[in-house]
Amino acid sequence: MRKILLVQGANLTYLGKREPEIYGTTTAEELNETLLQHSREKGYQLDIFYSNIEGEAINRIYEAADAGTHGLVMNPAGFTYGGYALKDCIKGAGLPYVEIHISNIAKRNIHCVLSDCAIGMMTGFGLHGYVLALEAMLHILEQNDARLRG
Amino acid sequence: MRKILLVQGANLTYLGKREPEIYGTTTAEELNETLLQHSREKGYQLDIFYSNIEGEAINRIYEAADAGTHGLVMNPAGFTYGGYALKDCIKGAGLPYVEIHISNIAKRNIHCVLSDCAIGMMTGFGLHGYVLALEAMLHILEQNDARLRG
Amino acid sequence: MRKILLVQGANLTYLGKREPEIYGTTTAEELNETLLQHSREKGYQLDIFYSNIEGEAINRIYEAADAGTHGLVMNPAGFTYGGYALKDCIKGAGLPYVEIHISNIAKRNIHCVLSDCAIGMMTGFGLHGYVLALEAMLHILEQNDARLRG
Amino acid sequence: MRKILLVQGANLTYLGKREPEIYGTTTAEELNETLLQHSREKGYQLDIFYSNIEGEAINRIYEAADAGTHGLVMNPAGFTYGGYALKDCIKGAGLPYVEIHISNIAKRNIHCVLSDCAIGMMTGFGLHGYVLALEAMLHILEQNDARLRG
Amino acid sequence: MRKILLVQGANLTYLGKREPEIYGTTTAEELNETLLQHSREKGYQLDIFYSNIEGEAINRIYEAADAGTHGLVMNPAGFTYGGYALKDCIKGAGLPYVEIHISNIAKRNIHCVLSDCAIGMMTGFGLHGYVLALEAMLHILEQNDARLRG
Amino acid sequence: MRKILLVQGANLTYLGKREPEIYGTTTAEELNETLLQHSREKGYQLDIFYSNIEGEAINRIYEAADAGTHGLVMNPAGFTYGGYALKDCIKGAGLPYVEIHISNIAKRNIHCVLSDCAIGMMTGFGLHGYVLALEAMLHILEQNDARLRG
Amino acid sequence: MRKILLVQGANLTYLGKREPEIYGTTTAEELNETLLQHSREKGYQLDIFYSNIEGEAINRIYEAADAGTHGLVMNPAGFTYGGYALKDCIKGAGLPYVEIHISNIAKRNIHCVLSDCAIGMMTGFGLHGYVLALEAMLHILEQNDARLRG
Amino acid sequence: MRKILLVQGANLTYLGKREPEIYGTTTAEELNETLLQHSREKGYQLDIFYSNIEGEAINRIYEAADAGTHGLVMNPAGFTYGGYALKDCIKGAGLPYVEIHISNIAKRNIHCVLSDCAIGMMTGFGLHGYVLALEAMLHILEQNDARLRG
Amino acid sequence: MRKILLVQGANLTYLGKREPEIYGTTTAEELNETLLQHSREKGYQLDIFYSNIEGEAINRIYEAADAGTHGLVMNPAGFTYGGYALKDCIKGAGLPYVEIHISNIAKRNIHCVLSDCAIGMMTGFGLHGYVLALEAMLHILEQNDARLRG
Amino acid sequence: MRKILLVQGANLTYLGKREPEIYGTTTAEELNETLLQHSREKGYQLDIFYSNIEGEAINRIYEAADAGTHGLVMNPAGFTYGGYALKDCIKGAGLPYVEIHISNIAKRNIHCVLSDCAIGMMTGFGLHGYVLALEAMLHILEQNDARLRG
Amino acid sequence: MRKILLVQGANLTYLGKREPEIYGTTTAEELNETLLQHSREKGYQLDIFYSNIEGEAINRIYEAADAGTHGLVMNPAGFTYGGYALKDCIKGAGLPYVEIHISNIAKRNIHCVLSDCAIGMMTGFGLHGYVLALEAMLHILEQNDARLRG
Amino acid sequence: MRKILLVQGANLTYLGKREPEIYGTTTAEELNETLLQHSREKGYQLDIFYSNIEGEAINRIYEAADAGTHGLVMNPAGFTYGGYALKDCIKGAGLPYVEIHISNIAKRNIHCVLSDCAIGMMTGFGLHGYVLALEAMLHILEQNDARLRG
Repeated sequence: MRKILLVQGANLTYLGKREPEIYGTTTAEELNETLLQHSREKGYQLDIFYSNIEGEAINRIYEAADAGTHGLVMNPAGFTYGGYALKDCIKGAGLPYVEIHISNIAKRNIHCVLSDCAIGMMTGFGLHGYVLALEAMLHILEQNDARLRG
Repeated sequence: MRKILLVQGANLTYLGKREPEIYGTTTAEELNETLLQHSREKGYQLDIFYSNIEGEAINRIYEAADAGTHGLVMNPAGFTYGGYALKDCIKGAGLPYVEIHISNIAKRNIHCVLSDCAIGMMTGFGLHGYVLALEAMLHILEQNDARLRG
Repeated sequence: MRKILLVQGANLTYLGKREPEIYGTTTAEELNETLLQHSREKGYQLDIFYSNIEGEAINRIYEAADAGTHGLVMNPAGFTYGGYALKDCIKGAGLPYVEIHISNIAKRNIHCVLSDCAIGMMTGFGLHGYVLALEAMLHILEQNDARLRG
Repeated sequence: MRKILLVQGANLTYLGKREPEIYGTTTAEELNETLLQHSREKGYQLDIFYSNIEGEAINRIYEAADAGTHGLVMNPAGFTYGGYALKDCIKGAGLPYVEIHISNIAKRNIHCVLSDCAIGMMTGFGLHGYVLALEAMLHILEQNDARLRG
Repeated sequence: MRKILLVQGANLTYLGKREPEIYGTTTAEELNETLLQHSREKGYQLDIFYSNIEGEAINRIYEAADAGTHGLVMNPAGFTYGGYALKDCIKGAGLPYVEIHISNIAKRNIHCVLSDCAIGMMTGFGLHGYVLALEAMLHILEQNDARLRG
Repeated sequence: MRKILLVQGANLTYLGKREPEIYGTTTAEELNETLLQHSREKGYQLDIFYSNIEGEAINRIYEAADAGTHGLVMNPAGFTYGGYALKDCIKGAGLPYVEIHISNIAKRNIHCVLSDCAIGMMTGFGLHGYVLALEAMLHILEQNDARLRG
Repeated sequence: MRKILLVQGANLTYLGKREPEIYGTTTAEELNETLLQHSREKGYQLDIFYSNIEGEAINRIYEAADAGTHGLVMNPAGFTYGGYALKDCIKGAGLPYVEIHISNIAKRNIHCVLSDCAIGMMTGFGLHGYVLALEAMLHILEQNDARLRG
Repeated sequence: MRKILLVQGANLTYLGKREPEIYGTTTAEELNETLLQHSREKGYQLDIFYSNIEGEAINRIYEAADAGTHGLVMNPAGFTYGGYALKDCIKGAGLPYVEIHISNIAKRNIHCVLSDCAIGMMTGFGLHGYVLALEAMLHILEQNDARLRG
Repeated sequence: MRKILLVQGANLTYLGKREPEIYGTTTAEELNETLLQHSREKGYQLDIFYSNIEGEAINRIYEAADAGTHGLVMNPAGFTYGGYALKDCIKGAGLPYVEIHISNIAKRNIHCVLSDCAIGMMTGFGLHGYVLALEAMLHILEQNDARLRG
Repeated sequence: MRKILLVQGANLTYLGKREPEIYGTTTAEELNETLLQHSREKGYQLDIFYSNIEGEAINRIYEAADAGTHGLVMNPAGFTYGGYALKDCIKGAGLPYVEIHISNIAKRNIHCVLSDCAIGMMTGFGLHGYVLALEAMLHILEQNDARLRG
Repeated sequence: MRKILLVQGANLTYLGKREPEIYGTTTAEELNETLLQHSREKGYQLDIFYSNIEGEAINRIYEAADAGTHGLVMNPAGFTYGGYALKDCIKGAGLPYVEIHISNIAKRNIHCVLSDCAIGMMTGFGLHGYVLALEAMLHILEQNDARLRG
Repeated sequence: MRKILLVQGANLTYLGKREPEIYGTTTAEELNETLLQHSREKGYQLDIFYSNIEGEAINRIYEAADAGTHGLVMNPAGFTYGGYALKDCIKGAGLPYVEIHISNIAKRNIHCVLSDCAIGMMTGFGLHGYVLALEAMLHILEQNDARLRG
């Protein structure tokens, strides 16, 4: 069974309570439930990890890599602006990485320092973006498998 | 029935023949077929328009807006770097806009001047990104309808 | 009889339908009528040309220069941001050029790449700016004639 | 009767004597006479104020605002480069402001720090630009009145 | 027989009539005649294409590539400043590309965005530069052939 | 009773021991005592939180917001340079925020990335600045209450 | 008795009439009254000087320095952007300087060129900031005295 | 008899009292006496004008130009940083201009906006620089006379 | 006996597993063993501390300073890009600091924000650089002792 | 007989031994032979000068100018990046200058500080570029002669 | 026997006499003696070359490369700022290069243009740095040998 | 007897033959004669050294410093743009340095990298500037002597 780690960067624990005009009113708990439901339907294992501390996210990603996780989906959130250590970690851990931002950060004139180590990125689709990102990741993992078998 | 216009910017006619290590070997014709198949399955009307001339894309988008098209999906491709007139057109035409890039342009250090007038963007998922973009657009149109009915 | 060419740059065909809070609700057709009326009253020939394609505007300007047009009034609109080829054309065609922008582009933090090859520019006076620009052009042509006669 | 204040910024007292290849040979006195004649013909009150001291211009504008002046036309001249205090004054005084430059400052690669608080600007039409600017101001005041009556 | 496409970018149709102090007084027709004479003497096929529309140049280059053209010589002219789509086209079409500018653009402080996808470039040799560029291209094609045979 | 959270950013635990020519010789413990004494005199509850880890400060601020704290005073200290995640947290938590720096950071040519989400800031008044910042916060809370009652 | 000079920079005479959403509705006269009342209560002499002319403020500060004034509090207001001569004056006059801005200028993305020659600065506390600034100045003067006595 | 105007820019009235480690302890009065003595010895008329207000310096320079002054020597001092209006004045007044700075401003990383309209400049020679600047001006005036006679 | 703290910044725990073409295949454990062996041979106490959390490294350095450590050697690794708080800590803790990077960061176009508070730095010597850095530190400590005795 | 000086800038003595993937394997001696052969065939005198010292190249160019050399062809090579003194020399010596670079420096993102004082430049044609450059120079000298005779 | 060339860049002949607070009081002769002693102890041949002329250093490096030198250690000193030709030489000569700076150039805000073609660099260790650099070079040469033997 | 070294930087040997509209027609020999005459009249020893090679100028300055020269006057000429090694030399040699440029380099938008290590600089006074510079140097040496005696 495929294992995907979803990392929720700084400030996402406060989802639904923080700047709802940008991020909506769905809480982190509700989002988790939706996504775990998605994983059960699609038949993969989803681990969700929230942290406001960049180094904890780094620890968690290395741990996942060592435990055989197949892919990393992450909303860098508060780590968007200066998460260079996290970026080195992603390059080091070697997991395929899909990036997701709830809002269209280009519209807010924000540049994410992590994007260039992602396979792909999606921005602006609200919480629905998480579903799209997970499906994109599943597609990538399938293609990789096909390539290896091929 | 929903109508979506897909605009394929400069150089995409040459898809499959051009820089295959970045863009793959699927041709424009094969891609069109896949996407039209998708539209038939999902029950929406898909118009696909290719042009290497920015002003023709502008003409086509205004025409679509006047003809009641519901959404615009576009891969700006060659218009990525300097498509400011196209950007004013999108703001003017008032259609919800989803942007898609086949490669992860952040990895190639390319900034798209159009992204900040999109609702959302996806990059790096190869041709599969078109399917994701169209599904994201359908989701957006549903939400807008729900909001209006709501 | 004096001949003036008015070039309407990219997106102006959609005047009155596009971002009315910036550009007002008068349509291109209504504007044309007002300006042609002005030309009849003032006794000069006015040719109005709209295009969303920069190269077509270039073609039209050279054509006008060859046909003995005396002056060029232009709202670069969508060509404001990157119309360098158009700028070379204006320098090449050798017609006196008056630039007009409907909104005050300085307020929107927009820099027009064409302004420095104009004799004069006016911005921010709405559609009334076209009348002022044409009158400024007539004044310039009179002065030039006086200088030649002088 | 409408009251318009015309402020002539630093170095304009020397008009006609200074850099005539840029500014022509008409003196400040001759210009004043032309413009006052224009005001008598068009039936509005025109106050003309020259100063080489930015703070004096600020004083004069607040005084005018308190005295019920309807509009401000200004050639910032020497205040073009660094007149930030003057700009705050214009925003504070709340008068509609039309900016005029005798030469086309874009051609001389000069950026005016005041332009973005103007309703509109005109550059490059020589001394004739003052007449155009005053007429533009009269048009704006009429439109504002029409809006209020409307 | 070798086939070379010469693309003449925006504003070159006006050659000989435009800014003669920079570009000389030879017209486009006279230049064409000289170059076709050169091709007959050297025994290669020369196609010359002028356009003021960047997208048309793109269309023509893909068409040439599909038709077995061996090399592309281009004076980007008006596309020098922002021809990014054209640049992607050249990289996509895969033809060896030699760039030529009539004037020394470094002297005019102009940077050409296309130069870095050329094999070589020459600037400043006037219309004689076209002959040098075509001869350079012939030399390159010979070397490539020698390499393949080698 | 009003509740104010004082966050002391990275390196402030070492106050009094570190660069005394800039920060003085009063220790963190002595400062705490002075400020708690101030809170008892003025009748408000003061919580003081020190951390060298940005994410812990974020955790603490959300916790405070959830616990009904009325205002946040913070010396970002080591978070001054890159505390973007902290900034998003402050915007998210919605507490009025007063910023304080012991030294005049402008004199040391340091720009604080957090300042623009503060209501007000004070710099350069040494440890006395904490008292001024707390009094400013009390004044703000009184005004807000007055506004609500008003 | 301590003597403090309060300089009110360009545009502050118009306080209460100008951009009230930023600066409030209290007039300069009302503010003066509040502050003079404060000086009487605290037992120091307060001189308040308004000018829209930077050079007049310079004159006044040198005059104050010569007359034995102990400290300078200033809201540079319109001199914020380019008051370099004023800055040299403050460094030359040798008075301790406390800077105050009514609004949080960081929020408005304004950089004050004078701040780095201040002992301390406060921004964003509205007119209450003047009281805080004067109290900070009194505190500084007491400390300096203590140091001299010490 | 030759007439030279010496303009002393902002803050120079405070010479000898201000930052003596940079500017020395000689006062403005003492400097004046030395320079007037120099003018008597060399047989030219020297007018010395101090002002802290840029516009007053502009007024004085135009006045001098109208009164037949032959040359302008100026230490821009506080006008060094932003004296653009003064610069336009110097270009307008048409007097040969020699610039002098007491300290070597390059060492203090200061750029003077006026230098490029000077004939020559000298910096760093202390008050002795005034004598050198006046002698340089006399030399220039002699050469100009020789040229006219020549 | 001399005490040296070696801090291993973010991502170094993953040494030997991460980007081996840059960092080699030696693991953190093997490196530790080599370095501890070195400390035993040279007769000093070596404490090695790894953390992916910048604030933990700060905590550890202050702790070491309080415990009488003589020198700090650090590979900032993931803290290279934005470790400003760490930098303030090093300046605050007052320990002599030697910086080491495994790869030549100049070759990878990376600038380390911490380098300017180091006594010396070495880059590019692979893991052997740790030995060199420790020997450089021992040399520095000897020199400091000699100076104190001297 | 025409005399042309060919200057080979820093590092070209090592041609054929240095970075052959960029510069090929032909040595300096072989290149010289080819070019001298060319000069004999075309009937002009060719002097070739190699130096790794910029000032020696300057000396040589002035010497050539004094000796009646007609044209300068140069590959600035190592002087490309900072040869400002050489550039002043070329402007001073007054010889027509043709620049040549073996590789296409635009592709390597290198800007040559000398190019803007050349008549023309060619880059990227390998060693064949020298022949093209010499032929371009001969053409220029013929045109100049024709002009003088004309 | 291994041969290492040590190049001492511009101004190092004056070592010990020049800015001793930065570079110490040891002279070039004393340093040479120490390093030659080191070479005798470690059993390698050390050639030391001083020059103030960049091109002479280039000549010497090519000469060394041709003579079978194994490694280059260099303190670029005065060539640090603009030694681009020297850098091309190092890349061309193909010798492993270790860079050394006596002071920590990062602390003095100096960027060395040569560093990115070095294998490794060390800065800030005073003259002891030369010993460390030579030992690092010996280590590199041993590793390279082991690799070849391996 | 005082000894002054005058260094004439790159391209000054060609004085009088090079760009006479900027530098005049006096040759280097004539200038030397004038200055040596000046030295005989004023009773000091003047050594004049021309070189087009920066490193030779460095050699000469150290030599002069060792030989007891009292002051250095230099026109950096071609070393103006990138003479960083020369600048380190001047700082190292410890001679008082006066800089002179024949033309006003600010007018030509040239920044001299050496100016900030000079005591003073003069620009724009033509060859007369050499006399002024030497007199300024004599004045500085007298003041230094007076200080030592004082």
